[in-house]
Amino acid sequence: MSSPAAKKAKKTFVGEKVVLAYSGGLDTSVILKWLSGQGFEVICYCANVGQQGEDYDAITKKAKDCGASKVYIEDLCEEFVTDFVFEAVKANAQYEGRYLLGTSLARPVIAKRQVEIAQKEGAKYVSHGATGKGNDQVRFEMCAQALDSKITTIAPWRDAEFLEKFKGRGDLLAYATEQGIPVSSTPKASYSIDENLYHTSYESGILEDPMTAPPPEMFKMTVDPLKAPDKVESLRIEFAKGIPVKVTNKTDGTVKEKPLELFCYLNEVAGRNGIGRIDIVENRFVGIKSRGIYETPAGTLLREVHLDLEGLCLDKEVVRIRDQLSEEFARLCYNGFWYAPEMELVKHAIDFSQRDVEGAVEVALYKGNMTVTGRESAKSLYSADLASMEIENGGSIDYEPADAQGFIRINSTRLKAYHSLRGCPASLKTDF
Amino acid sequence: MSSPAAKKAKKTFVGEKVVLAYSGGLDTSVILKWLSGQGFEVICYCANVGQQGEDYDAITKKAKDCGASKVYIEDLCEEFVTDFVFEAVKANAQYEGRYLLGTSLARPVIAKRQVEIAQKEGAKYVSHGATGKGNDQVRFEMCAQALDSKITTIAPWRDAEFLEKFKGRGDLLAYATEQGIPVSSTPKASYSIDENLYHTSYESGILEDPMTAPPPEMFKMTVDPLKAPDKVESLRIEFAKGIPVKVTNKTDGTVKEKPLELFCYLNEVAGRNGIGRIDIVENRFVGIKSRGIYETPAGTLLREVHLDLEGLCLDKEVVRIRDQLSEEFARLCYNGFWYAPEMELVKHAIDFSQRDVEGAVEVALYKGNMTVTGRESAKSLYSADLASMEIENGGSIDYEPADAQGFIRINSTRLKAYHSLRGCPASLKTDF
Amino acid sequence: MSSPAAKKAKKTFVGEKVVLAYSGGLDTSVILKWLSGQGFEVICYCANVGQQGEDYDAITKKAKDCGASKVYIEDLCEEFVTDFVFEAVKANAQYEGRYLLGTSLARPVIAKRQVEIAQKEGAKYVSHGATGKGNDQVRFEMCAQALDSKITTIAPWRDAEFLEKFKGRGDLLAYATEQGIPVSSTPKASYSIDENLYHTSYESGILEDPMTAPPPEMFKMTVDPLKAPDKVESLRIEFAKGIPVKVTNKTDGTVKEKPLELFCYLNEVAGRNGIGRIDIVENRFVGIKSRGIYETPAGTLLREVHLDLEGLCLDKEVVRIRDQLSEEFARLCYNGFWYAPEMELVKHAIDFSQRDVEGAVEVALYKGNMTVTGRESAKSLYSADLASMEIENGGSIDYEPADAQGFIRINSTRLKAYHSLRGCPASLKTDF
Amino acid sequence: MSSPAAKKAKKTFVGEKVVLAYSGGLDTSVILKWLSGQGFEVICYCANVGQQGEDYDAITKKAKDCGASKVYIEDLCEEFVTDFVFEAVKANAQYEGRYLLGTSLARPVIAKRQVEIAQKEGAKYVSHGATGKGNDQVRFEMCAQALDSKITTIAPWRDAEFLEKFKGRGDLLAYATEQGIPVSSTPKASYSIDENLYHTSYESGILEDPMTAPPPEMFKMTVDPLKAPDKVESLRIEFAKGIPVKVTNKTDGTVKEKPLELFCYLNEVAGRNGIGRIDIVENRFVGIKSRGIYETPAGTLLREVHLDLEGLCLDKEVVRIRDQLSEEFARLCYNGFWYAPEMELVKHAIDFSQRDVEGAVEVALYKGNMTVTGRESAKSLYSADLASMEIENGGSIDYEPADAQGFIRINSTRLKAYHSLRGCPASLKTDF
Repeated sequence: MSSPAAKKAKKTFVGEKVVLAYSGGLDTSVILKWLSGQGFEVICYCANVGQQGEDYDAITKKAKDCGASKVYIEDLCEEFVTDFVFEAVKANAQYEGRYLLGTSLARPVIAKRQVEIAQKEGAKYVSHGATGKGNDQVRFEMCAQALDSKITTIAPWRDAEFLEKFKGRGDLLAYATEQGIPVSSTPKASYSIDENLYHTSYESGILEDPMTAPPPEMFKMTVDPLKAPDKVESLRIEFAKGIPVKVTNKTDGTVKEKPLELFCYLNEVAGRNGIGRIDIVENRFVGIKSRGIYETPAGTLLREVHLDLEGLCLDKEVVRIRDQLSEEFARLCYNGFWYAPEMELVKHAIDFSQRDVEGAVEVALYKGNMTVTGRESAKSLYSADLASMEIENGGSIDYEPADAQGFIRINSTRLKAYHSLRGCPASLKTDF
Repeated sequence: MSSPAAKKAKKTFVGEKVVLAYSGGLDTSVILKWLSGQGFEVICYCANVGQQGEDYDAITKKAKDCGASKVYIEDLCEEFVTDFVFEAVKANAQYEGRYLLGTSLARPVIAKRQVEIAQKEGAKYVSHGATGKGNDQVRFEMCAQALDSKITTIAPWRDAEFLEKFKGRGDLLAYATEQGIPVSSTPKASYSIDENLYHTSYESGILEDPMTAPPPEMFKMTVDPLKAPDKVESLRIEFAKGIPVKVTNKTDGTVKEKPLELFCYLNEVAGRNGIGRIDIVENRFVGIKSRGIYETPAGTLLREVHLDLEGLCLDKEVVRIRDQLSEEFARLCYNGFWYAPEMELVKHAIDFSQRDVEGAVEVALYKGNMTVTGRESAKSLYSADLASMEIENGGSIDYEPADAQGFIRINSTRLKAYHSLRGCPASLKTDF
Repeated sequence: MSSPAAKKAKKTFVGEKVVLAYSGGLDTSVILKWLSGQGFEVICYCANVGQQGEDYDAITKKAKDCGASKVYIEDLCEEFVTDFVFEAVKANAQYEGRYLLGTSLARPVIAKRQVEIAQKEGAKYVSHGATGKGNDQVRFEMCAQALDSKITTIAPWRDAEFLEKFKGRGDLLAYATEQGIPVSSTPKASYSIDENLYHTSYESGILEDPMTAPPPEMFKMTVDPLKAPDKVESLRIEFAKGIPVKVTNKTDGTVKEKPLELFCYLNEVAGRNGIGRIDIVENRFVGIKSRGIYETPAGTLLREVHLDLEGLCLDKEVVRIRDQLSEEFARLCYNGFWYAPEMELVKHAIDFSQRDVEGAVEVALYKGNMTVTGRESAKSLYSADLASMEIENGGSIDYEPADAQGFIRINSTRLKAYHSLRGCPASLKTDF
Repeated sequence: MSSPAAKKAKKTFVGEKVVLAYSGGLDTSVILKWLSGQGFEVICYCANVGQQGEDYDAITKKAKDCGASKVYIEDLCEEFVTDFVFEAVKANAQYEGRYLLGTSLARPVIAKRQVEIAQKEGAKYVSHGATGKGNDQVRFEMCAQALDSKITTIAPWRDAEFLEKFKGRGDLLAYATEQGIPVSSTPKASYSIDENLYHTSYESGILEDPMTAPPPEMFKMTVDPLKAPDKVESLRIEFAKGIPVKVTNKTDGTVKEKPLELFCYLNEVAGRNGIGRIDIVENRFVGIKSRGIYETPAGTLLREVHLDLEGLCLDKEVVRIRDQLSEEFARLCYNGFWYAPEMELVKHAIDFSQRDVEGAVEVALYKGNMTVTGRESAKSLYSADLASMEIENGGSIDYEPADAQGFIRINSTRLKAYHSLRGCPASLKTDF
């Protein structure tokens, strides 16, 4: 017995182009060589989504040295912030109540440009170095298939021959030496990292034991709250249509208004105040529980203040329905369904809900804490007169306390019917 | 035109008993006198749900002095923790994504004992001092109607005659003087407070302006993170069937195991580390937006660690469904539907989901931060082998990376159909 | 004790205008006189929403005879179909899985015109003859308050004085005689009826016993399936953007394309074939269970064929999310929240989902049965090649049967982990 | 490049046992031979889930003739009805609002016994003849993997070698002749059929064109409504804990009480009255749209009457939450997640909701119509007094019409705030 894929795999790829998502690291360099060995012309593609400290010239050189016919270094930062991160901000997107989707959001923007390059280059194949147990393979490939169903993805880490050849890091290093691939002298980290301007994630290796706390030196975007300044830093963040449009640092007067600049500035300020770390066990789409540690400074802060502003601007039943859509958004994004018809519907509805989410939130940052100290909006649905316990009527909105009696009594009707027909829910006591 | 209630109201209450929820404060003392004036025999009832600094002897004396025929001081702390707070812990209950329901949870336990007293005393009426614009009137009365539909609630703050007579605090003070009700010399706070062992809430008065930050001296259960100790305190919290059963302070060796004691200890430790404050605009059941500030030290901590343990012990789809039930739980609890048939269903289902939520979570507390540093469970569904990116197969659970290809491709089937039939979702670019 | 409403009620209404929703029947004629007696100038308003057999001239004359200062007869049929009924068609709206919302949908269009008349006339009051136990009072008044919060509704059937005066039909008749109100010689039906072009409903009276079947002669829009023709009548119904745009009777060649005409024609054809009766116990918003019998011929048929067409045109996950929105739509509509912010969101999202719901459905009608015999769409997502079990690949959409293996195995990962860690769900037997 | 599966596939199966789900038809007979050819000892297993007209002796003989070492004929009818079908009845389970899950429900009971046989026989493999594009492969294998993760499924219709050998029916027939497999002289139907006591389904072949109506002679369990008797047949169906416990034919006096017998009797009566046919386009789990025609006589009738009885017995908010669980149940069942942890939760919660669903429904059957003519329950939450528009108060349950005023006004609070702050939702007109 054998699979049809196996049979087809015997074909040669000579003359075919493949666009490889290339990081410059050991794995994708080995894959580059290996794809060349299969007959492919390999076009390397490196997406800049804000990961720190990359030397794109060095990456380009290494790719060329390893045999790439062409190298694309693509700056996707602006697009990533405006079309992906800000969609998540509008949605308050959070997977399983905790994870802010930093990796999940970056995958579609990376995959989209990879498909665009493939189309431009006339390549029928794309390739990546994601493993066969994770979410990223799913996200990359779901997006690619949605955007261009004619393009085939080659995932070496799921390929039997490749897996047979490369059973561990030792095999990769030996192959690199043999093939003349330059190898970094830095020893491999004891965990793996994914980085973009929205977040940095850490998993695998020593982090696979859920009882092991992460090493303190691991973090890249945030300081430990213990080491954060022992003083408050205050921000005023303004929103329009549910997205941040202006940040004012009330402590030092800095102002930022352009999306990417504003977002990076929030990363900096939130990061230096120790905001945005989580350490969780989450559920991958492939059904595996996984332990991940994330730092998402600006994202954590923006979710908090956006939620707060919505408290002023959104009707409570709109919030209830939007909350269901937010969960859909998070699950779809996490699972790789960014370019799915249901995601179009969810985003369309969330956008509508955000049309009046505008105003400002003031927030004090201190050693991992974000304390909202005030909020205001021209579109506020909050009325101090209506809220007040002191004033008999609700000011411009007529409110009669006496009406609450009928409200309560009618709401109780079915409870009274239920309990009188079925008996009391709690065994009431009289022996006390 | 007139309401039937108005007509009936002309009846006399001489010879009738009423059980008044009595706090010893100005409002309920005036209500006590006023009810007496209507002909009622007034039985006072003061529930101890853990509010700090109460002098129950003084309350008893004051009630008697004001004409109460009898005074019940009822210690409901244990029942409140085990039957109400721990239900919320199991459910991860949070209203509108932020409020931990501290007041909402206390209302049904208070109302239940009030009904029990009424039944024991043969009283056909109960009364409370809640206003006509808030949630508490709803919660008290919904519970009372569910538990005994023959009992009528008298809510003076919705009564036309009472409202006519008492238009402000001045009227209450004048009446108190006239009737010989002792008045505290402490000036009225510039906001109102509700307190129990789960939380303290602050609203109204100066807090009605959502741009006004609360005064720093306001808080009662938590220190300001700025003033919390500049060192970490570590706890190990153990759970069985979704509720905490043991707390060990790893810093000083303290151990607590009894529900009430354990809970109060967590309040103390979380409180001294500045954990559990929120400041939000929420939506009352009566449709009014309201600004509230809450401190819920133990509740905030327990929600965090319970969620974390569930990450290990619960299947991802169980979590998804339980999350919907949690939202129902929160909304029902907030709106006063504790003794409703749908709440029975929700609690029954959540209980079932918690049967294997057991194990321990270790957490470091520091200046408002709760950092989970490890978790373990004999019922863990997490498998390091399965999660590992390093190992080809999943250990005891067979996992073939190659299978992911089919998983992805089949999940993409409808996306490919959709996009090939309807055109690509994003206008792909090739001019870069 | 008394209510503030009672106090205010002592005021006089001399010089005030009230717009009364007037049907020409006994109840609203008595209300007209009674309102006049309170000092009001009464403007009568009769909405034509397609109820059969009304003599609007006679209604106008009767209103004038009873003292109305002015009478508005408003034809709302077209608006009712396009802006209300068709919204329900797009949403597949059904309350509690069965009720098609015929009365609920008519209330907002009636209330809207009533408010418009009040604004035009400078009236500060509106009034209706709905009872104090039903849904209609809620729907009329919620809509009125949303559309103009300055307008007050007078609901005599909730007014203590009115209720005291009119305890039963006898009192109404006596008052009519006394006041010279002409009374129809037709004896009162043993149930109550509500009628519009979408449906006719029957409740109350003899129908209050849920074991009592309705009298066969009761129905107005549909024939009994037993008496329907013993032959099939075939229709082709075409949709665009989720609403019907053309109906062709394939049996006799009739074609209809204008919304109102098309809808009325479907009523006629579905009605004569015995389609659209239901007999249910439903839950009123006020918490009372109620037995209602409804006939909704065109609505029942349109829901069936619209659902069928969506089967072709909508992605499955879009359907899943839209189904949740449909339930919201139905509940909001039933409860009177037509002009609510959350309804705007729901309608906006449903509209988006319907943008590609176009095509034709052919359906055979026969004695209460609607059998879809075919459907087609230029926007179909159905692919016979892809669906086929016969063809190895999916035609234009590539589908590899072998991929299903990975799909299944990955979907099973968490089930295997769960059962191997927790033990098998069913006690498997080997003793057979 | 090749898949790991391909590599493993080279191993021999000599000495291994496989349990084949065997129908006696051409496909599974060829599979039997083919598995033998791979070295397997083949144990045949034929599940009796109520499919009509099977000759189990002939199946046994044919299996033996084709080389089966052993044949299990297993009567699962009773278990299928009580543990699967009745679970669906309690849940009102319906996939995508229309499909009653007849095939989906049978798969887990069949798979469970297959695993039991494998365990009893010490077989490490199971096999089936389901295709690689359908739902059944998923259902069979998900259940098998959940019940025993050590057992491997062999699915020839996804095997490359098998697919290469058998490209169409011609190849199967040629192989049968060559291998001496007896071939039925009946020509192959122009569509495929799946049958059990709950339903019969038809798909593929000529039915793949959604514009093609099914041939009238196709149906097996129901008569065409056109040919059903032209008279009413009346049933009384009694329920306890949400499942049917007694059926009385009021027309002829027949009474049935045992689960299987009762269910089969309902099939007979509903079937002869033309009840239970649908013709839909549905969405398979693998993302393919598929056209299916189903007849589910007893299931259709039971869903109708069960829903009706719930109208009497269940609180409206319980219904709302249960409806969400019902949708989960249907989707999980359809997708093959019968033995999943989330299904345990859903079933547990639904069971709880059904504890008071008891009573009787009377229903008239006539040419495809099921008309409920009455319902009653000792656990009814319906109160005629409360529902009545005639009586001022609600009888045993106190209901004041005047209370509705407050109910409406408080429910309108946020609508008034919204519209007064944001402007009216509809442009009100005064030019009429």
